[in-house]
Amino acid sequence: MRRLLVGRPYDTERLNRRPLGRFTALPVFSANAWSSIAYAPDEILLTLALGGTAALALGPEIGVAVVAVMLLIVVSYRVAIRAYPEGGDYAISRANLGPWAGLTVGAAMMLDFVFTVAVSMAAMAHYLTAAVPALGGAEMAVAMAGVVVLAMANIRGAGRGRVTPAVLAFLFLALLFGMIVAGLVQDVTGTLGPATSAGVEPVPDPAFSEGLGGLALAVLVLRAFSSGSALATGVEVPASNVGAMAKPRVRLARSVMLAMGLTAGASTIGVMYLADRTGVVFVLDPSGLQAVGGGPVSEDYVQNPVLAQLANAILGHGGILAGALILMVAVLLVLAGHSAFKSFPELASRLAADGYLPRQLLTRGDRLGYTNGVVLLALAALALVVVFQAQTALLVQLYVIGVFLSFTVSQLGMVRHWSRHLANTPGVRARQAVRTRRLVNLVGLVVTALVALVVLVTRFGQGAWVALLAIAAMVLVMSRIRGHYEAVASELDLTSTEDARALPSRVHAVILVMSVQRPTLRALAYARASRPSSMEAVVVDLDKASTGKLVAAWDRLGLPVPITVLASPYREMSEPLIRHLRALRRTSPRDLVVVYIPEYVVGGGWQALLHNRTTKRIKARLHHEPGVMVASVPWQLETSRRGAASTPRTGTSLPPTGPWTGPVESGVQGNGSSADQADRP
Amino acid sequence: MRRLLVGRPYDTERLNRRPLGRFTALPVFSANAWSSIAYAPDEILLTLALGGTAALALGPEIGVAVVAVMLLIVVSYRVAIRAYPEGGDYAISRANLGPWAGLTVGAAMMLDFVFTVAVSMAAMAHYLTAAVPALGGAEMAVAMAGVVVLAMANIRGAGRGRVTPAVLAFLFLALLFGMIVAGLVQDVTGTLGPATSAGVEPVPDPAFSEGLGGLALAVLVLRAFSSGSALATGVEVPASNVGAMAKPRVRLARSVMLAMGLTAGASTIGVMYLADRTGVVFVLDPSGLQAVGGGPVSEDYVQNPVLAQLANAILGHGGILAGALILMVAVLLVLAGHSAFKSFPELASRLAADGYLPRQLLTRGDRLGYTNGVVLLALAALALVVVFQAQTALLVQLYVIGVFLSFTVSQLGMVRHWSRHLANTPGVRARQAVRTRRLVNLVGLVVTALVALVVLVTRFGQGAWVALLAIAAMVLVMSRIRGHYEAVASELDLTSTEDARALPSRVHAVILVMSVQRPTLRALAYARASRPSSMEAVVVDLDKASTGKLVAAWDRLGLPVPITVLASPYREMSEPLIRHLRALRRTSPRDLVVVYIPEYVVGGGWQALLHNRTTKRIKARLHHEPGVMVASVPWQLETSRRGAASTPRTGTSLPPTGPWTGPVESGVQGNGSSADQADRP
Repeated sequence: MRRLLVGRPYDTERLNRRPLGRFTALPVFSANAWSSIAYAPDEILLTLALGGTAALALGPEIGVAVVAVMLLIVVSYRVAIRAYPEGGDYAISRANLGPWAGLTVGAAMMLDFVFTVAVSMAAMAHYLTAAVPALGGAEMAVAMAGVVVLAMANIRGAGRGRVTPAVLAFLFLALLFGMIVAGLVQDVTGTLGPATSAGVEPVPDPAFSEGLGGLALAVLVLRAFSSGSALATGVEVPASNVGAMAKPRVRLARSVMLAMGLTAGASTIGVMYLADRTGVVFVLDPSGLQAVGGGPVSEDYVQNPVLAQLANAILGHGGILAGALILMVAVLLVLAGHSAFKSFPELASRLAADGYLPRQLLTRGDRLGYTNGVVLLALAALALVVVFQAQTALLVQLYVIGVFLSFTVSQLGMVRHWSRHLANTPGVRARQAVRTRRLVNLVGLVVTALVALVVLVTRFGQGAWVALLAIAAMVLVMSRIRGHYEAVASELDLTSTEDARALPSRVHAVILVMSVQRPTLRALAYARASRPSSMEAVVVDLDKASTGKLVAAWDRLGLPVPITVLASPYREMSEPLIRHLRALRRTSPRDLVVVYIPEYVVGGGWQALLHNRTTKRIKARLHHEPGVMVASVPWQLETSRRGAASTPRTGTSLPPTGPWTGPVESGVQGNGSSADQADRP
Repeated sequence: MRRLLVGRPYDTERLNRRPLGRFTALPVFSANAWSSIAYAPDEILLTLALGGTAALALGPEIGVAVVAVMLLIVVSYRVAIRAYPEGGDYAISRANLGPWAGLTVGAAMMLDFVFTVAVSMAAMAHYLTAAVPALGGAEMAVAMAGVVVLAMANIRGAGRGRVTPAVLAFLFLALLFGMIVAGLVQDVTGTLGPATSAGVEPVPDPAFSEGLGGLALAVLVLRAFSSGSALATGVEVPASNVGAMAKPRVRLARSVMLAMGLTAGASTIGVMYLADRTGVVFVLDPSGLQAVGGGPVSEDYVQNPVLAQLANAILGHGGILAGALILMVAVLLVLAGHSAFKSFPELASRLAADGYLPRQLLTRGDRLGYTNGVVLLALAALALVVVFQAQTALLVQLYVIGVFLSFTVSQLGMVRHWSRHLANTPGVRARQAVRTRRLVNLVGLVVTALVALVVLVTRFGQGAWVALLAIAAMVLVMSRIRGHYEAVASELDLTSTEDARALPSRVHAVILVMSVQRPTLRALAYARASRPSSMEAVVVDLDKASTGKLVAAWDRLGLPVPITVLASPYREMSEPLIRHLRALRRTSPRDLVVVYIPEYVVGGGWQALLHNRTTKRIKARLHHEPGVMVASVPWQLETSRRGAASTPRTGTSLPPTGPWTGPVESGVQGNGSSADQADRP
């Protein structure tokens, strides 16, 4: 079953891969940033629509402002890469601002990745609906299916190719710029037709119905700007993946970032301009639209995303080119979600390595993906999709706050870094270079902090507080996990190994007898084989009649081990047993008591419910007794063998020529271990 | 927590109780049968209401027919008790008709008990609402609360008193007969007022709107009769509890049954007569009612159960006596549910003893109740209450089929019993007596079979098939469970004990190392204390760097045990370990391999999620390997001690003067065991 779903396991060697060159690094790591063009313009327009048709004219200006912020962030990261090529915001914040800042950024980024998946899949569903109108109404199901498929693909370790995604991303970019150029040409030649939605107009929100004077206008512009800043999401991806690029890595990463920023910026401004020229209208709730000049909108009006509307208007409604562009937007959104599915588990693994998350997130699965992290991300993203009913606009409003929070903290960390660096830098020219870099990051800090503030203030009521609360909760949980691991580690430290090394003086074996059957005899045989200092069989008297029969049967067998009957007035197994063991421990505290428990191994499923329930409880209780070791003596029932038969089969299904080398013994002095001993003293 | 909910455990000695005398046995064991009067008349009337007002006049006649059937069943059981004083339908069917018949009756009865609880609590909720109109609309919540309270009470072992229930049941009977006598007197004197519902009338069902000629009438009467046969539910209770009565048991039980049947019959006929005289109307869906002569029913009309309507009409609407009777009906229904909570777990325990149900149902809990059986019954009853939204009428329709199925099979068993008995009976008079008894049970068989058939035919579409399907499924599951237990038992039989007794020639100890910390050293110390023939530490190489460090640390400690590094190309713990163990077993198959696994013991809760996940998986896999024993070496973390501290506390909270006698050793020859040795050779 697992093999069928996940596939044959991959060798760890597969992790060593060729780095990405210029023409693959750009599209692969820009997909996330480019995909923002699929929803950022929509966000700007739907916010402006609150102010009525007149406010929509502000679209291009706000587009320019958003692009400016995005480019500033890109420049900041280009500077940051110089100092932290292996970087990532988590590492920068942790190194320069301490563990709490690191933890905050880690939490914010984890949340961001969840939103990346949810937003991308929701937007993908809406673009798919624009291309295939028959899907209309099933957006949520499509988005959820997208999450599941991405998760499955990542557990299977798929999508490790880079040529296909690179080609797809470039194809998207080519179609997008093609459309923009075509639109501009049509605009100049006067052949640019109106968008479908040019026939409708938004009803202004009551808050803005008085017209757009003074404060109302400022609020509207700030809100539209904060929504549009979703364009900046994903620009940090190349900076976090410098390690995967070809040498000279930092230079390549810097030029990838620049190219990414410029293409994204140019296309966004183009889209915003053309949306304005074609009269695109996009609102949060299409049922609030009216036909131009008042009156109801026709029944069959469907609101498509902005890029889809533009494609139809410029490239011909329902034409092949328009359809191709819309589909490529959906594909790019899938690539963006896929990149989150790679980044989230890596970040989680890093946080787990630092002790902030459970160790299960640390290790790679069969196909080299961090399976547990992938599953966690998928579940969280599915929850978001369901809660927000795959409404991209609502999701984006929560998305932006976490993104800009981590931008801000990371920029603060970079400013701090350069300040420290300055103190250790001799030479006037070198110091001047550092000062310039610090200035860039300082500007970045001020801008991102301002944007974060604007988003927080304008969106606090619309859910920004939920995002902040979630981040705070994650920080709290992660610090508690780390506290727990630290407490355990210091407790288990080998500073004083004497108590742990001391050999018990004698070993007393206790065989728990619940029936006189073959498993019990095997437990007895195993106990005898370990030649304990003393040995006794123990039966808990739950029922007088059956205990009597059991003792009689035991005696009939003539076994060389005495049997002790423990009274149990309250018909309970573990309490009398534990009292007995404690009494043993009291008389000779330095002895080790080994309790041999015969256990049935059944085939699983419903049969497991019929056996070993008592045994499990007893074992759990015994674990709390110091100086008591529990030895489980399994008896494999016929039914279990059918199940077990599959175990060697999966075993032998491993490639026989694989790197299995068999055990190699390492002597007491450490000679001959097969482990990589490069870092041994 | 558990102590708070369940209370201190009871000593097994408490089970030996004084038997019930005449004046306690009658009310305690009749509560179930008497409580049927709370819903059986309602069932008759609501079925007749399908035929319109005219059909309601048939109520008394059908009441008489239902009472006649009930009395016939009582007489049959009075005869059956003679042969099976320890009886119960399950035992009778199993003994005379074989295991499949026994199993069918067992399944039908288990289902009956579930329905008894669900029906009683649903009806209780409706009577409570009649007394406290403020509860209107919350019937389902009240019924569910009733199930939970009964379950808690039975887990706590409450309700073991018999005087209180006896007094309550007698009080009910006195009030009921008081009302009937008062009603008859009012009837004779012409002062009997109309019921509240006399002002409304049912709209006939389309099927009967043509009037009540021929077939339609017959169908209606048969359906009303089958619904009304719910009166017979619970009459078997005294026959199943002969063992709890005072001597002469059988005679007492027989007279209890007779008294129970006569009181239930007389009161039912009285209620049906008075309902007819006062014009009581009761329908399944009150929204289908109309005012007499047509027109809508007033908004605030509330349909109360029949007994509540009668009480209000005869004893004064809202009067103290009427309220007292209604409340006592609710109390009696609680007693009926309580009796099912005693019978179901006992039957389940009996089926478990015969291997048909998991062994967890076999043993008594802290307070001597069969806790697992009680929980199972409560969950099933809650499910029924929720599914049927506490609608008594719907529940009763499924209830009756199972009841009459077990009646019929049991009567068939009795006929078979007397026939066999006859063959071994000498003497003309004795044979004549047996023949008479057989005739009684034969009549009982024919009547119950006919009723079962009528119920099945008239109610098949309304859910009887669900009940039948459930019984069939239970029979199937139970027979599979027994098959499994039998297969296991024969596999574990001591016919050839040689293989189990054979001592392994050598013991090879394997210490699983995952970190060089104190728990690992303790595992090593324990392994060394058991002086195995050979010993090795084993580390699975999940990650080259950390494995290298681990081996270096191991070597630094200078431990006298070599460490083996197992390659794991697929980053998996158990597969390489199992390959290694199999290799060991192949080279020396007669050796025992003991795997020592260090385990953390944490305080539970969220911390448990952070530890031992891998260990658990490995242990589960190792259990499938023959010749491998798993020794868990627990390390109690600080956090666990807080949790463990409560363990001795509950231990010492046991009465210090209790019957704890301490271990008594039984020698090899069987001398000196403290177990009751009455049945030893």
